[in-house]
Amino acid sequence: MTFPTTAHAPKTARRNGLMHSGSRIVPEEVPIAFSYGGSSHAVMMATPADLEDFAVGFSLTEGIITERAEISAIEVVAGEQGIDVQVSLVDDVADRLRARRRSMAGPVGCGLCGIESIEQAVRPVPDVSTSPLSLSHADIVRAVSLLNEAQPLHRETRAVHGAAFYRPGRGLVAVREDVGRHNALDKLCGAVIGSGESGDDGAVVVTSRLSVEMVQKAAILGSPVLIAISAPTALAIRAAEEAGMTLVALVRGEDFEIFTHPHRISPGSIADVA
Amino acid sequence: MTFPTTAHAPKTARRNGLMHSGSRIVPEEVPIAFSYGGSSHAVMMATPADLEDFAVGFSLTEGIITERAEISAIEVVAGEQGIDVQVSLVDDVADRLRARRRSMAGPVGCGLCGIESIEQAVRPVPDVSTSPLSLSHADIVRAVSLLNEAQPLHRETRAVHGAAFYRPGRGLVAVREDVGRHNALDKLCGAVIGSGESGDDGAVVVTSRLSVEMVQKAAILGSPVLIAISAPTALAIRAAEEAGMTLVALVRGEDFEIFTHPHRISPGSIADVA
Repeated sequence: MTFPTTAHAPKTARRNGLMHSGSRIVPEEVPIAFSYGGSSHAVMMATPADLEDFAVGFSLTEGIITERAEISAIEVVAGEQGIDVQVSLVDDVADRLRARRRSMAGPVGCGLCGIESIEQAVRPVPDVSTSPLSLSHADIVRAVSLLNEAQPLHRETRAVHGAAFYRPGRGLVAVREDVGRHNALDKLCGAVIGSGESGDDGAVVVTSRLSVEMVQKAAILGSPVLIAISAPTALAIRAAEEAGMTLVALVRGEDFEIFTHPHRISPGSIADVA
Repeated sequence: MTFPTTAHAPKTARRNGLMHSGSRIVPEEVPIAFSYGGSSHAVMMATPADLEDFAVGFSLTEGIITERAEISAIEVVAGEQGIDVQVSLVDDVADRLRARRRSMAGPVGCGLCGIESIEQAVRPVPDVSTSPLSLSHADIVRAVSLLNEAQPLHRETRAVHGAAFYRPGRGLVAVREDVGRHNALDKLCGAVIGSGESGDDGAVVVTSRLSVEMVQKAAILGSPVLIAISAPTALAIRAAEEAGMTLVALVRGEDFEIFTHPHRISPGSIADVA
């Protein structure tokens, strides 16, 4: 099932003091529900594309599954106001989720106090320090340059985020886009583990700023290097430091900044960047 | 109680092919829980500033209160991993919230199917069509130009969003900043209704892209004009169209684009923009 990811919006534009009628291509934004065993888990506002990857990645980064094979089926059901992505889990994983739901309260009037809710929201970030991955300066510049050229939805709208997985020597092996930066990264995680590959031998590259939740998602994928075009928060840096993850940000042309674990980044030669 | 909103992060920067050690000022990002009657409602990742405005604005845009006077007290309690903002409601509003919590399920294993959850997530946007507010081209350019100069946290970090309230003839009456664009707007809504003023006689101005939830928040504040520096989603445009809200976006210098209800924007003269 495919859904439109853009729309033509009529507009009146002011240019150089004159008014013009025209239209602009804008990204769609659709409520996407994820349901497990017929019961919804969350509703995300997202770009309605790559919904299977999104379901796999969301299930992974929410800690519902640990590998793709734990999902037995994914059904996409379009409703009037949004899309319900119905995920079927293999038996023991479905049992685990039911047990977790019984012990875990939702945020609405759940009886937890604020401090308990914060402890539930701030999950430990998996350790990725044992990965042997190392990148050269040229890899970083190339990964970002390749991502800039591999975003069809962004080229059309200039208004969505991209996330990519980069393997040295192979280039970008997956790219996903979304109106939400966290969704783009969930879709990417789903695409990587859905292809049966591991996340520990490549870098995650994102076009956005970096929140702590994005460090968490990359670490759950197993990737030890996270490269962002924009700036990280202080909490994202602390989480990457603790997880043993190399955080590279503010990549502009051949310049960039390394905030944590710089040992994975070797000078190398940048001259061969196309 | 005040909390640091920025941190100095050590970094290794590549500039013109050479590596330099230094540090960058990055924004803090802190889990903020909102509790009502001792029971938490939500945890947001946010900039730990203007927390009373945030509590008032969040309570307003979540539909928990309709005016500032329905909150009897706000207490900010710092925990180890985050901040609990404890909101006390006047009696009948607290009763209303308890009743709503009984009838409303949370997103985690709540028994609702996906389509029901989507219907709960997509709330109708209040109608703002009766406001007589009108703005000139110069107002739009001036509002954005003033906001660009009124963001101390962004000037320091280049990595946070701003939201402002602009009244013609008075300029910006409130500006709030946050690592999250939705949080910045909630804080602004809280600042406006907290000052005892109405939202129907001014425009909301934001530095970010526009999601449907931001249209919703501005409409709940009562503002009939929403101005964004970046692009709107298709759903944001449809929501503004239905709500009778004028949506102006992609403001660059003296150029901008009007997507809905352009009757509120008069050409005027732009020559007097400083």
